[in-house]
Parts: sequence; C-alpha cells; structure tokens
Amino acid sequence: MPESPIRKLVPYAEQAAKDGKFIYYLNIGQPDIKTPEAALKAVRENDVEILSYSKSEGSGAYRKKLANYFKIHDIDVDSKDIVVTTGASEALLFVFGSIMDPDDEVIISEPFYANYIAFSTASGVKVVPIVSKIEDNFALPSIEAFEKLITPKTKAILICNPGNPTGNLYSKEEIQKLTAIVKKHDLFLIADEVYREFVYDGETHYSIMQEKEIEDHAIMIDSVSKRYSMCGARVGCLVSKNKSVIQTVIKFAQARLSPPTYAQIASEAALDTPRSYFDEVIAEYIGRRDTLISELNKIEGIKVSNPKGAFYCVVELPVKNSDHFAQWLLEEFDVNGETVMVAPAGGFYSTPGLGLNQIRIAYVLKKESLIKAVNILKEALKVYKD
Amino acid sequence: MPESPIRKLVPYAEQAAKDGKFIYYLNIGQPDIKTPEAALKAVRENDVEILSYSKSEGSGAYRKKLANYFKIHDIDVDSKDIVVTTGASEALLFVFGSIMDPDDEVIISEPFYANYIAFSTASGVKVVPIVSKIEDNFALPSIEAFEKLITPKTKAILICNPGNPTGNLYSKEEIQKLTAIVKKHDLFLIADEVYREFVYDGETHYSIMQEKEIEDHAIMIDSVSKRYSMCGARVGCLVSKNKSVIQTVIKFAQARLSPPTYAQIASEAALDTPRSYFDEVIAEYIGRRDTLISELNKIEGIKVSNPKGAFYCVVELPVKNSDHFAQWLLEEFDVNGETVMVAPAGGFYSTPGLGLNQIRIAYVLKKESLIKAVNILKEALKVYKD
Ligand SMILES: Cc1ncc(COP(=O)(O)O)c(C=O)c1O
Ligand SMILES: Cc1ncc(COP(=O)(O)O)c(C=O)c1O
Repeated sequence: MPESPIRKLVPYAEQAAKDGKFIYYLNIGQPDIKTPEAALKAVRENDVEILSYSKSEGSGAYRKKLANYFKIHDIDVDSKDIVVTTGASEALLFVFGSIMDPDDEVIISEPFYANYIAFSTASGVKVVPIVSKIEDNFALPSIEAFEKLITPKTKAILICNPGNPTGNLYSKEEIQKLTAIVKKHDLFLIADEVYREFVYDGETHYSIMQEKEIEDHAIMIDSVSKRYSMCGARVGCLVSKNKSVIQTVIKFAQARLSPPTYAQIASEAALDTPRSYFDEVIAEYIGRRDTLISELNKIEGIKVSNPKGAFYCVVELPVKNSDHFAQWLLEEFDVNGETVMVAPAGGFYSTPGLGLNQIRIAYVLKKESLIKAVNILKEALKVYKD
Repeated sequence: MPESPIRKLVPYAEQAAKDGKFIYYLNIGQPDIKTPEAALKAVRENDVEILSYSKSEGSGAYRKKLANYFKIHDIDVDSKDIVVTTGASEALLFVFGSIMDPDDEVIISEPFYANYIAFSTASGVKVVPIVSKIEDNFALPSIEAFEKLITPKTKAILICNPGNPTGNLYSKEEIQKLTAIVKKHDLFLIADEVYREFVYDGETHYSIMQEKEIEDHAIMIDSVSKRYSMCGARVGCLVSKNKSVIQTVIKFAQARLSPPTYAQIASEAALDTPRSYFDEVIAEYIGRRDTLISELNKIEGIKVSNPKGAFYCVVELPVKNSDHFAQWLLEEFDVNGETVMVAPAGGFYSTPGLGLNQIRIAYVLKKESLIKAVNILKEALKVYKD
C-alpha cells in the first residue's frame, strides 16, 4: 500500500528532526493516541459516489446519535439543539458572531485557550480576562471578582472545562456559582467542553447543560478532535436549548454550506467506540500525568499545577521570559542531540505581563519520552541565563 | 455493505418527496455528477491510524500538486502562494478578514453569489453593488461605472468568473479592464474562480492570475466542490503572490487549526483525474444547458441569459415576485404530482428591488428531468397569479 500522505506530513510523531536535533513536542494538543477503529473503518468502507454537501446543521443521523451520546453523559438534549460545525473552532467563531455585537464583552478566566482571542477579534468582540492563579490550582475566581467586571456591554462568560491550558476541572459547586451569576445578570454561559472525557482521579465532569435553570443561557461547545483522537476530522458542534441562538447559528452554518462529509461519517461511527477504549486512554493519560508531575517536582525552583483533567499542565519556571527560554531550547540547547518544544504561557493570557514565567506542557507523549523531556528541561534550567 | 449514511441524508437526488409531491431541485448548485474514482478510492484505501491535524495552510504535498495543476492552467504559482481552506467559503471569509477593516468597501457586480453578503457582514465589510444586466448578458459594467463607486474606503473589487448566478464568462479584455482599474486605484482584485473548468462553446477561461502586472493585487479563490463534484469534501484554497496577504490569511488559518484531513487526501488524489472525465462532464453540461435554454425559450414572455460557463442561468419571468412564485410552486402547484424548486433571484442582488422578477436555474439535473421541469414552469406560468 502506498505510504499515506498524512503520515509524511503531520508532526504528530513524538520526535522530528530539526537541524539534526530530535525534538519532543510538548507544545501542541495533538494526541499520539490511535483513532478508534470503528471510525477509521467506516471511512475505509464508505460507499459515497457523489461526495455531496451535507445539511448545513450537520447530517440528521449524526445529530441524532450525538444527542444520544449526550444523554448518556447526563446532558438531556435533542438533535434539534445541536449544530454540527467544522471543529470546535468553527463553533466558537459562530457563537461569538451569533450572540454578540461588535464591542460587546465576554469574560474569560485566564489563562485560556489562545484562539479564543482570534475568534473574538474576528467578530469584533472584546475579551475581558479574569485572572485565575496557579497557587489556587486555577480554581474559579470569586463571584465578587466576576461582578466587578460585568458592564452593560457584557454578554457572556466563557469557560473551558476541563481546562486548556490549566488542566483544571470545575466542580459542580463552581458551575452553580456561574449559574447564579449568569441568571442574576442575564448573561450567556458558554462552556468549551471538548475535554469532557479526560477527567481523572475518580472525579466526574459536570456540564453546564445539567443546570436546568439556565437552559436559555447555556451554550456548550464540543468536538471529536480530542475525544477520539480525530483532530484532523474537523468535526465539532454547538449545543443549546435556546432556540433563537440555534436559529442564528444555523444562519452562519448555511453561509459556509456544510461541515465535512467524510468526517461526519467517521464521527458518527466513532460514537460506537466501546467504553474500554476510553478506559485504556484515560489510564494512559493518568500514567503520563503522574509521571510528568513527579518528574517535574524533582526540579528545584519550579511550581506545577495539579491537573485534574484534559492533558495539559501549567508550569512556573525560574525564568523571566519563557518565550525566550522556549526559543533557546530549540535553537541553542540539547542533551545528546535531543531537545524539547514547550508552549510559552504568555499567549494564554490577555493581561499584559502575566504568564511570562510560565509554560504549558501537553502530556501527549509516552511516559518514557516524558521522562526524557523533563530531564532535558532540568538540565536546561541549570545552564539557562535570562 | 450497509447503506451509506450520506445517501440517506443528502438531497442531491433529482427528486425527493415533499408532502407526497416529487420535486425537481433546480435551486442548488449540488451537481449529480459522480466524484472521480481516483478521489473516492484514495479515501477508501487510506491508511491513517491517527487522524491528525494537517498543517494550517494545508498539507505540503497537496499544495505542491495543486501548484502544478494551476501551472497546467497557465496560472504560474508556487505552493507557498496557496493556503488550503475549508471550502471556497472559508477562503472568502479569510479574504474579507485579511484585507479589509470594518467599514471598508468591496465592489461586487450584481447579481452575485448570495453568501458574499454573509461573509462580508461577518467581517463588518460593506458590499457596494454594481449592476450588470440580463439584457447585456451580464457583461462587465463600464470602467466609468466602477469609478463612480470607488471611495477612499474601497479596498477591493470581487468578481465571480465564470459567474454564479449569471453563467457569464468574462473575456480576457474584460479582465484587462479590471486590471487597469485596480492598478490605477490601488485596489485588490478578488476572483472567485470555482467554476474555472465549466466553460463552453470553445471559450477558454482567463484567470486574473495571468495578469502579471497586478500580481500584488490579485487574490484567487478556488475549490474542489464543483470541479470534481466533491462539494462535501470542504476543500478550497486562496491563492496570491502577495506575501503579506498570505501571511495574514495564514494567521486566520492557524486560529482554526487545519482544513479537513480526509478531504485533503481526496483532493490530492482528485488531481490525477484524467482529462476524459472533464470532457464527459463538460459535454453533459453543454447538452443540459442547450436543452434548458431551448425549452425555456418556448415559454412566452420570459427572458433567458445565455450562459457561457458554470451551470446556472438567470431567467426573467412575467411575475412580480419570484419569491412568492417559488413558494407557490412548492406549495400549491404540481403537474401529475411533480413540481419544481427554483432560486428566487432577489437574494443575489443587494440593491433593493432588483431581481424580483428573476429566478436562477441550476442545470444540475439530467436532460429528461430538465425538460419535465421546464414544462412544469410553463404550465405554472399559465395559471399563476401574482
Ligand atoms: C480548549 C479547546 N477548544 C477548542 C479547540 C479546537 O478544537 P477543534 O479541533 O475541535 O477545532 C481546542 C484545540 O486544541 C482546545 O484545546
Ligand atoms: C460562486 C461560488 N463561490 C463559492 C462557493 C462555495 O463553495 P465551497 O463549497 O467551496 O465552499 C460556491 C458554492 O456554491 C459558489 O457558487
């Protein structure tokens, strides 16, 4: 069989040569986990002859099965509450365009997924950051802190749960605090729940969609990218019980015609993935996280958040400018010809000056690689000078 | 083999039941042409195991092969001048976002593809229409007419060539007129060339990219949707020799991570489609067009544009409100249990009041169906009252 083009092109591999150096990619959220066989098989065995547009809101069969998946996760929605999008990325773009006018404000707890800024900017919407701290393990800021930031222009609060880059998981109590705020001030609550499955230590994920009182306020963003290690599918969705939100989102969806058809075939089939797949994947991530955290804790002078979900953690380093440090690691440092690529955390903050001594590590590599990668960080910090 | 989900869900079929009536869909640009086997096969035989993000600007191998395809069409571009997008739709959204600020103006000759309005609105950009007329077969308006509309806010002229909904094909001379205007006023010239292959009567398509003098002004939009009857792939591209445009577009591309991976496999393989496929397809469309036009001309009191490209034509009807007429056809009319769905042309104009007595017909059905569909229109016009 000819070599797949994807294999040749995509940097999902743990190591890739750069200037002869091997690099451990800890900087991107592209898992090395195999996509469920059910999804791959459905595409290999598809019998499409005319690769047509699907419905703008997504294929009916997929939306129906997706509603069922949500029900199993205690999220009681119907297929008509779901709009299938080209990744969570597009769902985010649609939500900013649909519920906000230019110059409206959305409060987001920082550090946050950097592209929130890109999508809000594209829609002319202003991001108002509310700081969460590594010392508090990035817990939800207080109600008072939120209320200080609410203005007549505030239209929504956006959370990411479990969190990228924080690895934080909001408790039911924290979600209920948010419920109280959005009810009181009549705001939308947007929750990016693309890491729903990735929760550890026996905790369970509590969705904003479980808060019946705010049915008309709640908008959930989801994706197959991380859940099934299907980032390249480009299938996500936007879910809301608020009919007028869905109607507006569908207008955006109609303008771009449809989400990708092959990817919807894969996504629909992926819903048949057995529970055992997730058990294995979760066990693998817990192992990686534990390895990563314990290895990091052996380095002196650094502070590590304690991730309870997703596959990221934020690390505070004894450096002044992690941007420079990350660059230096790539260009000027190696241990036996190997180095590490990390994400400087400045990009996850919109308050100037914050996060400059932090990095985000994605534990998307095998344990042995994580051990080697952290060792490289440790050696690097011994010699690095700001 | 199980029935494909797509087959069940997508209204590409010529006829679908609605309230027991059979409907000829002449309203949408979803061809009934089979997708090239090379593309379908590449996806069936893919050996992806981890469905990863591709590069944000598209897979390197695909962009390289695409540059080669363009060279064969006398368009001398390199892979670095190409950004792969999720359909031409996304390329249009990126171009509005990249070269214009809110309140900037783009001049578009109307009637135009209705979603241009959606994408410009999403970017806060104002569409300034310039009227082209059915009497002139929708030829390019005069230079003077363009110059009257140019203001300090004007950033670009957007054309669609061959045209949807007009079926018009601009000549080399018309493109050179545009070249002169954009050079003189330092504007961008955006050309939506998604119907490049669909030109008839021995004419050849002349791309704006062939005008070397305006290399820095020209931005071309393209797509596999129509060319290979692969609308559901969701793969398009944006092409420009202007490096700073490409750089900005790539920022938008990075925010949404990547175009769909399976669809890029299909699109890359589609480039191996033999010339004979297009010969057959073009012959089929010419036959359909000729049948459609000659059947339409048998109806008294209507005016038909003479399409030289794409697979649409605009028809002026002896009705006051084609929106109402189209609705009435669906709800209150049939010939032996069959009716027709057409696109009212009002949506293709942004000048209020224009196009209200016009419809767009997409000749995406077989000849026999077109004959039946036009007959239904003829019978309908005999009894319809505004
Ligand atoms: C928090 C978060 N939201 C959304 C996305 C975008 O995901 P998708 O691939 O579905 O567009 C990502 C991707 O990394 C993410 O981390
Ligand atoms: C003129 C024109 N441009 C762009 C598009 C969008 O095409 P795509 O499927 O590549 O998004 C269409 C689709 O009908 C079209 O007619």
